[in-house]
Amino acid sequence: MRRQVSAQLQLDVTEPALLALQITAATRPEQEQLTIDCGGALIPYRELTAPHGGRLQVIDAPIGNIVIDYAATVDGEVPTPEGDEHDRLAYLRPSRYCPSDKLLATAAAEFGHLKDTGEIVTAVARWVGLRLAYIVGSSGPTDDAVDTLLLGEGVCRDYAHLVVGLLRAQDIPARLAAVYAPGLAPMDFHAVVEAWVDGAWRVVDATGLAPRRSMLRIATGRDAADTAFLSVHHGTADLTTIGVLAIVDALPNDDPAEVVALT
Amino acid sequence: MRRQVSAQLQLDVTEPALLALQITAATRPEQEQLTIDCGGALIPYRELTAPHGGRLQVIDAPIGNIVIDYAATVDGEVPTPEGDEHDRLAYLRPSRYCPSDKLLATAAAEFGHLKDTGEIVTAVARWVGLRLAYIVGSSGPTDDAVDTLLLGEGVCRDYAHLVVGLLRAQDIPARLAAVYAPGLAPMDFHAVVEAWVDGAWRVVDATGLAPRRSMLRIATGRDAADTAFLSVHHGTADLTTIGVLAIVDALPNDDPAEVVALT
Amino acid sequence: MRRQVSAQLQLDVTEPALLALQITAATRPEQEQLTIDCGGALIPYRELTAPHGGRLQVIDAPIGNIVIDYAATVDGEVPTPEGDEHDRLAYLRPSRYCPSDKLLATAAAEFGHLKDTGEIVTAVARWVGLRLAYIVGSSGPTDDAVDTLLLGEGVCRDYAHLVVGLLRAQDIPARLAAVYAPGLAPMDFHAVVEAWVDGAWRVVDATGLAPRRSMLRIATGRDAADTAFLSVHHGTADLTTIGVLAIVDALPNDDPAEVVALT
Amino acid sequence: MRRQVSAQLQLDVTEPALLALQITAATRPEQEQLTIDCGGALIPYRELTAPHGGRLQVIDAPIGNIVIDYAATVDGEVPTPEGDEHDRLAYLRPSRYCPSDKLLATAAAEFGHLKDTGEIVTAVARWVGLRLAYIVGSSGPTDDAVDTLLLGEGVCRDYAHLVVGLLRAQDIPARLAAVYAPGLAPMDFHAVVEAWVDGAWRVVDATGLAPRRSMLRIATGRDAADTAFLSVHHGTADLTTIGVLAIVDALPNDDPAEVVALT
Repeated sequence: MRRQVSAQLQLDVTEPALLALQITAATRPEQEQLTIDCGGALIPYRELTAPHGGRLQVIDAPIGNIVIDYAATVDGEVPTPEGDEHDRLAYLRPSRYCPSDKLLATAAAEFGHLKDTGEIVTAVARWVGLRLAYIVGSSGPTDDAVDTLLLGEGVCRDYAHLVVGLLRAQDIPARLAAVYAPGLAPMDFHAVVEAWVDGAWRVVDATGLAPRRSMLRIATGRDAADTAFLSVHHGTADLTTIGVLAIVDALPNDDPAEVVALT
Repeated sequence: MRRQVSAQLQLDVTEPALLALQITAATRPEQEQLTIDCGGALIPYRELTAPHGGRLQVIDAPIGNIVIDYAATVDGEVPTPEGDEHDRLAYLRPSRYCPSDKLLATAAAEFGHLKDTGEIVTAVARWVGLRLAYIVGSSGPTDDAVDTLLLGEGVCRDYAHLVVGLLRAQDIPARLAAVYAPGLAPMDFHAVVEAWVDGAWRVVDATGLAPRRSMLRIATGRDAADTAFLSVHHGTADLTTIGVLAIVDALPNDDPAEVVALT
Repeated sequence: MRRQVSAQLQLDVTEPALLALQITAATRPEQEQLTIDCGGALIPYRELTAPHGGRLQVIDAPIGNIVIDYAATVDGEVPTPEGDEHDRLAYLRPSRYCPSDKLLATAAAEFGHLKDTGEIVTAVARWVGLRLAYIVGSSGPTDDAVDTLLLGEGVCRDYAHLVVGLLRAQDIPARLAAVYAPGLAPMDFHAVVEAWVDGAWRVVDATGLAPRRSMLRIATGRDAADTAFLSVHHGTADLTTIGVLAIVDALPNDDPAEVVALT
Repeated sequence: MRRQVSAQLQLDVTEPALLALQITAATRPEQEQLTIDCGGALIPYRELTAPHGGRLQVIDAPIGNIVIDYAATVDGEVPTPEGDEHDRLAYLRPSRYCPSDKLLATAAAEFGHLKDTGEIVTAVARWVGLRLAYIVGSSGPTDDAVDTLLLGEGVCRDYAHLVVGLLRAQDIPARLAAVYAPGLAPMDFHAVVEAWVDGAWRVVDATGLAPRRSMLRIATGRDAADTAFLSVHHGTADLTTIGVLAIVDALPNDDPAEVVALT
C-alpha cells in the first residue's frame, strides 16, 4: 500500500504572526517535502515534536501571501502510537470540545445497559452516526460536543468530539486523530476517534465517510484544539485557499462495519 | 526554608474503582511517606510520571473505607519546570475549564490597550481579583471560566481558570498549578496560574490568599481537569473527609505585589 | 371536593425591596385570607391581575422580618382558563427556561416518528420521567431545560421545563402552571405542564408525584420566570422559612396514567 | 411627519405550514394594504391582537411560492403603549434571549456605582455600543445576550438583547420593539429597546443606526421570540427574499445623543 498525500495552504498575513502548522505525516516518511514561501522567497521554520510521533512546524510569518506546500509518499503500514498509562488517564479527562463531564447522564441513559467496552464503542459510533446529519458549514469553531448533540448536525470534527465525549463519560480513554484519508469525498483533512479497547487503540469514524485502513495520521490529541492543521498566534492571518489530496494505490479491503487500527 | 506538608483523604468506595491521586510534591522530596489503607491493610499503588515532574498514583480500590495519608518535608527552593516550546504552544490552546476561544472579545475589550506581556499579566490578575468574590461553595464542578465570569464568584480554582482563559485569549501561555500553600486560610489544596513572561513562568494568584514563595507544586496542567487531587474512574467512591496541612519554618519575604517564580 | 390550602413565608429584608408574590389561588376563592406582617404591623399590598386569572401581590417591603400568611378554601371544580389563539402562539415560543429552539434535534430524534399530538404529549412525559431522577437540591436557579437534560436530575420545575421545551420544539403549545397539589410528598409548591391537545389544555406532570384532579392553580406562564411564588426587586430579601399545605377532603379518583384537566 | 413603509417577503413552502406574521404597523394606519399571494391567488389570513397594540397575522400556507406584500402610510406621532404595572413586572423577568439572571454580576461590576435610572440606561446603551461591533452575519438565531457579550459582535437584535438583559439585571423594566426605521442603512427591519425610566418608556438604540423619532412600531415583547416578523410552525417554509422600505417626508430633528419616546 502506497499513499501519496499533499496539502497546500495559502494565507494572507496582514499582521506578523506566529503560525503553528500540523499537516505533516506523524511518522516521518521516506519521501517528503515541505516548503513555505512568501513572495517567491522561502521562509524558514522550526519543527517541534508533538505527542505520539506528531510533528509541528512553527513559522514566524511576515506580512504577505504565504504559500505552504506539503507532499509525502508513505509505503506500508505505520504502527499506532500506544502511549503510556498516564496518556490514557489524560484521555479520560474532559477537554475543551469534549466536555465529557456534561455528558454523564446522556451516556448513562443511552449506553448504561452495555457492559463490554467494545460493544459500547460500537454502539456509541452507531448512535452518533444516526443522531447527527453531516452538513458542511453547520457548526462553528467554538462548538463543543454538547452543542453538536443539541444541534444534531456537524462535520467530521463534530462527530469525533461527540464520540470522544460519550466514551470518556463512560471511562473509556478516547483521543482525536487528524488524518489524511484516501477515498474521502469531498477530499479534506479528516478527523477520527481512537478508543482504548482491550489494550489497543481502535479507530472509530462515526461519519463512515472514508476507509480506515489507508488513513495516515497527522496529529493526535485530546480534541481539535490539539490537532488543528493551522493555529495563528499574536498576529493576523486569514486562510484564503486550502487544498488536500490523499490517494492510495491499492485501497486495502475495508469493511465499513469493521473497526480497525489506524496506521 | 523548610516546608512540611501533609494530606489525608478518606473515601467511601461502594463499587470497586480506579483512583487517580495527585497529592504528592512534584519533585520527590528527601523525606516523604504515602500510605493507602483499607480496613487496616495497606493497598498497593502504581506511580506514574505526570508532566513537569508531577507524579500520579493509581489505585485499584476495593469496596470499603480507604484512608490515604501523605506527609513530606521539603527543604529549600525547588526549580520551576520550564517545559519546551511545544508545551508552551499547548498552553495557548483552549481547554475544558479555560475556553479562551470564548474570551477573545472580553480580553480585547479589557486589556487590548496594553502591549507589554508583563503588564497584561498583572492587569488580568488585578481585574480578576476585583471582579470575583471569593465565596466557598459558590461554584460547581462543571463551571468553566465563562461561567465564573458571569457568576462573579468562585474559589481558587475558578479564579485561576479565568486568569488562564484571559491570558491565552491574548496569546500568553498559561497553565494551572496545584500547590500546597503554607499560610493559606482556611488551609486547603490551592491552585495558582503560571504565565509565560519574558522567557520564564511567573506565578499569578488572583486570590491573593497565600504567599507565593513558599508554595510547593503538586501538579501542573491545562486546567483543573489535569490537576485534580482525586479522580474516580469505573466505580463509585465518595470523598468523606479531607485534611490538608502546609507549614513553613521561615516564610520568605513576600511582597504581595511582587510576582515570583513558584518553587 | 373541598381543598384547603395555605402558605407561610418568612423573609429577612435587609434593604427595602419590592416583592412580587404569587401564592394566591388563580380564581378568587369564596374564603381566603392574606396577611403580610412586619414586626406586628400589617403591611399593605397592591393586587395585580396576572394572565389566565392569576393574581399577583406587590409589596413595598421595609427592612425587617416579613411574615406572609395565606389560607384559602376552594370547593368544587375550577375551570381551566383557555386563553386565545395569540396566547397559544406565545406558548409555542422559546422562553428563558424552555429554550425549545435548542431542543429541535433532540425532539426530532426521540419523537419524530409520532404523528398524533396526544401520543407525543404522553411520550414526552414518559420519556422525561424516565430520563430524569428527582433529586432535591440537584438543580440551580439559572438552569434551563437543556441543563436539566444534560444533568439528568431535577425537581418539579426542571421536569416541567424539559417537557415544555420538548413540546414547543414539536409545535405543541405548552405552558407552566404553579399549583397547590394535595397529596404531594414532601409538600411544597408544585409545577406542572399544560399542553394544548385537541382543542383543550391537558395537564402533564412528568414527576408523577401528585394526583392531578385536585391540584389548584396559582399562576400560569411561559416558565418559572412567570410563575415564581416570590420575586425580589430593587432591594435585598432572603427567604428564611417556607411552609405549604394543601389538603382535599375527598381525593377524586385519579388514575396516574390518565391525563386530566387541571382545575 | 408622514412615513411610508412597506415589506415584501417571498417564501418557498415545501410542506404546508402555519405562518405567523408581524410586519404591520402596531397602530392600524389609515392607509394600509396587506396581500398574501400563492401562484396568483390570494390566500386568506386571520388577524390576531398582540400586546401593546400589535397585530399578528396567521396564515395556513399551502405548498408553493408565497408572496407577502405590505404597504402603509402613517401620519404624525403615534402614542407609545404604556401597559400596566403587571406588564412592567413581566419586563423585569429573564427571557429566552435576555437571560438577565446570568448578567447580574456583569451589570453590578459595570454599572453598580450608578444610582439614577436614567443615567444607568444611558450608560448601558453607551457601553453596549462600544463593546459590540456591528457585523452582519456574525450571530446566529439561538444566540442570547450572553453569547453576544462573549462574541463582541452582532446585529441590531443582539445589541437590543444585551441592553435589555443588562437593564433587567438592574431591576429596570425593558422590552424589545421591532420597528420600521426610516434612515436605517442598509434598510431592514430594526429592533430597539424601550426602558422604563421615570414613569415612561424611553427608546434606547445602542446601534445608533437610525433616527428614533420617525421609527414606527411593529411589535413589542420580551425579546425577539415575541417580535419575529415571521414564524413558521408545523410545516416547512424557507424565506427566499425579503425587502423592507421605510421613508419619512421630513425627518424630525433628532439629536443622536437624545433619548426619545418611540412613536
